[in-house]
Amino acid sequence: MTGARFITLEGGEGSGKSTQARRLAEHLRAGGVEAVLTREPGGTEGAEAIRSLLVTGNPDRWTPWSEALLMTAARADHVHRVIRPALARGAVVVCDRFVDSTRAYQGAGRGLPDAALTALHDQAVGLWPDLTLVLLLDAEQGLARAAMRGAAEARFEAIGGAFHARVQQFFSELPGREPQRCRAIDATGSEDDVAAAILAAL
Amino acid sequence: MTGARFITLEGGEGSGKSTQARRLAEHLRAGGVEAVLTREPGGTEGAEAIRSLLVTGNPDRWTPWSEALLMTAARADHVHRVIRPALARGAVVVCDRFVDSTRAYQGAGRGLPDAALTALHDQAVGLWPDLTLVLLLDAEQGLARAAMRGAAEARFEAIGGAFHARVQQFFSELPGREPQRCRAIDATGSEDDVAAAILAAL
Repeated sequence: MTGARFITLEGGEGSGKSTQARRLAEHLRAGGVEAVLTREPGGTEGAEAIRSLLVTGNPDRWTPWSEALLMTAARADHVHRVIRPALARGAVVVCDRFVDSTRAYQGAGRGLPDAALTALHDQAVGLWPDLTLVLLLDAEQGLARAAMRGAAEARFEAIGGAFHARVQQFFSELPGREPQRCRAIDATGSEDDVAAAILAAL
Repeated sequence: MTGARFITLEGGEGSGKSTQARRLAEHLRAGGVEAVLTREPGGTEGAEAIRSLLVTGNPDRWTPWSEALLMTAARADHVHRVIRPALARGAVVVCDRFVDSTRAYQGAGRGLPDAALTALHDQAVGLWPDLTLVLLLDAEQGLARAAMRGAAEARFEAIGGAFHARVQQFFSELPGREPQRCRAIDATGSEDDVAAAILAAL
């Protein structure tokens, strides 16, 4: 693989995205490619400050729209300061979560219309991934993994099973609905199996 | 005046909005009306946390879109938790700055399209004032007043004269462009004169 490329990893909690994003970046670097590994919400000083507002406090601290706008504000900063400059110098950017997480959590999960969220993204961010790897587990398996790991984003995980089922459904349907950009990755196997599936998808 | 009503005060720095908002709320209360006095950015715990991100740091800390989205996130919270509940119980809400400030500062000032900002507001907030009082000074006079007062929002005031001229132009044209909702108030006179002009506009 040569040239600038923007790859995102998406999926529910405990799907192994962060591990696989790191492994993918390491694989690319081992092949002599400049790979920038980053994550959302976060990735810049400003976005981390917004992230800290989002991941602390009560589950009902923010309305769905406030949450979506905070996510998008952080994303606009991240794209402007990190992702676009890296792509402009020819790097591959590997990002753990991006706009599809907002569509899944604030859209499918919290009831905001997907069309409004994608329009907001077009307007305020204006960059879509070249490739999105959607790591799929069933929701129960994902939550069990995340609980074992003691995930920090306790607020999202306190919201309940029906919410997570809607999120999981969004992710599971996404590759079929947007096949040119998105690939489903079976995340039920071992770390090595999933890494191999990701390399195959590239 | 009886019944729920949502009144906003807008204008550049140093136009006396905050003083006049307080005086208006006091006037209404003296007449036996429940008046809720609030301000933006801020007005709820969550919105104040967002405000603290916005008013500190370098003038270029946030991109225009990040700034507009943070403002709108705070506004959605403020409307949901304070303004709509107050209107629902029949109060008059007097708010120091609202959506027109985002249109002026992030729109006219920082170059975001007004149509995109009003569409964002329609989607994510969905509440427009019944009456907007636009306090008008020329920009130089306003900045001189704000500097004397030692205004806290130093970040916005560090951005420069051309920016403030565009903001001022937006505010000065707003009453003519949206006459059903907006009234121009001459803010060059004494505090008492301006208060009298506001009562006349009601």
